Amino acid sequence: MQLTMENGLVSAFRWAPPFAQGLVRDMRVRWALREAGLAYGLDFVEFGEHKSPEFLARHPFGQIPTFKADGIELFESGAIVYAIGLENDVLLPRDEAQRISTISWMFAALNTIEPVITVLTAADLVQPDADWDRLFRPRAVASIDERLSRLDAWLSDRDYLVDRFTAADILMATALRLIRHTDIVAGHPMVARYLERCEARPAFKAALDEQMQGFAENAPVASQAEAVTA
Amino acid sequence: MQLTMENGLVSAFRWAPPFAQGLVRDMRVRWALREAGLAYGLDFVEFGEHKSPEFLARHPFGQIPTFKADGIELFESGAIVYAIGLENDVLLPRDEAQRISTISWMFAALNTIEPVITVLTAADLVQPDADWDRLFRPRAVASIDERLSRLDAWLSDRDYLVDRFTAADILMATALRLIRHTDIVAGHPMVARYLERCEARPAFKAALDEQMQGFAENAPVASQAEAVTA
Repeated sequence: MQLTMENGLVSAFRWAPPFAQGLVRDMRVRWALREAGLAYGLDFVEFGEHKSPEFLARHPFGQIPTFKADGIELFESGAIVYAIGLENDVLLPRDEAQRISTISWMFAALNTIEPVITVLTAADLVQPDADWDRLFRPRAVASIDERLSRLDAWLSDRDYLVDRFTAADILMATALRLIRHTDIVAGHPMVARYLERCEARPAFKAALDEQMQGFAENAPVASQAEAVTA
Repeated sequence: MQLTMENGLVSAFRWAPPFAQGLVRDMRVRWALREAGLAYGLDFVEFGEHKSPEFLARHPFGQIPTFKADGIELFESGAIVYAIGLENDVLLPRDEAQRISTISWMFAALNTIEPVITVLTAADLVQPDADWDRLFRPRAVASIDERLSRLDAWLSDRDYLVDRFTAADILMATALRLIRHTDIVAGHPMVARYLERCEARPAFKAALDEQMQGFAENAPVASQAEAVTA
């Protein structure tokens, strides 16, 4: 049985604090669905409610996004993008060697690049601390720089991670966007140009506009926002 | 074209320092190949040489393992285990819903569990620092505990992550093993029993014995070991 991804439901925050706007990982799913030409609906979850028993029954770790397709609720953005990729050959090449290369780069984005990036994002945006900034932030930045310099070399003669745009680029570009508050990517010119190339894609722009528009429409009044982010 | 995984070559360190022995991620590939009943060979790389231009030509980030099959060098342990899983239905269920669930858990192991674990492993084993221990280690442990408590709940009525042993268990168990120097896993009884269950599998034991035997046979004399780990 092949699951049908058409007309699935993407879970997304109804509203999120500004530092997270445009970064919440349902971006990956919306972008992938739009690249693949698949219609979808949105299922809004209140910010903070993702750790409620109700949502934990849908996602074992209480994270956004999930994707409900064919009656099954998928989780982990990497897995959802992979499942969407199976629908046609837009995101996952049919050629076995190209497909395996795409899958290698999907895991590289999520297991080699994103983990060193989220260390910095968590400290800078979620739990800032002056001691950490002074003592350990330089070390975290160096870890990212080391890996991005390898990525820069890889991209020196390539437009995308494999021979053409694939699911791996959706995961990599959205991981790189997590440090948009720094100038780290700008220090790696091929990576910077690659990210611009990905962000120039119509499907990316439409997904981003859609996420931002939802946040704008559902923005709480100031006092509510304070309660949510306190 | 379906790639053939039989008789591939796993790259592995000829020798690694004691803190890494039994943890180097070629364990994942050896274990998967043994579960799937596929013969393989080893291609030893000197510790430290994985960042050499020669090895970087084989792996864009200079990491162990790679897996050479059918003339193609795969990288990222998650992708390699996935590719091995395609060979038969031992590691990746054929049923589409079960397969997608397996893939969700593969990404959960590598993108939700392993990243919070490697923060601790890197600080405890690779770059210990008294300030970090005092100021930030408790925070890192709390992050792991939060996620393992979710995993504990998930495993309360399951032997494995999905309905039976799959590729996801190889990735999860090897991620959990990275904090064997702590008592964190022991604090989550269902996770602890799950890890024991995984480690009791004959294919795991054979893969571990093989990695450890290689390290024992190729152990440098004391002065060389000092030079390598300095």
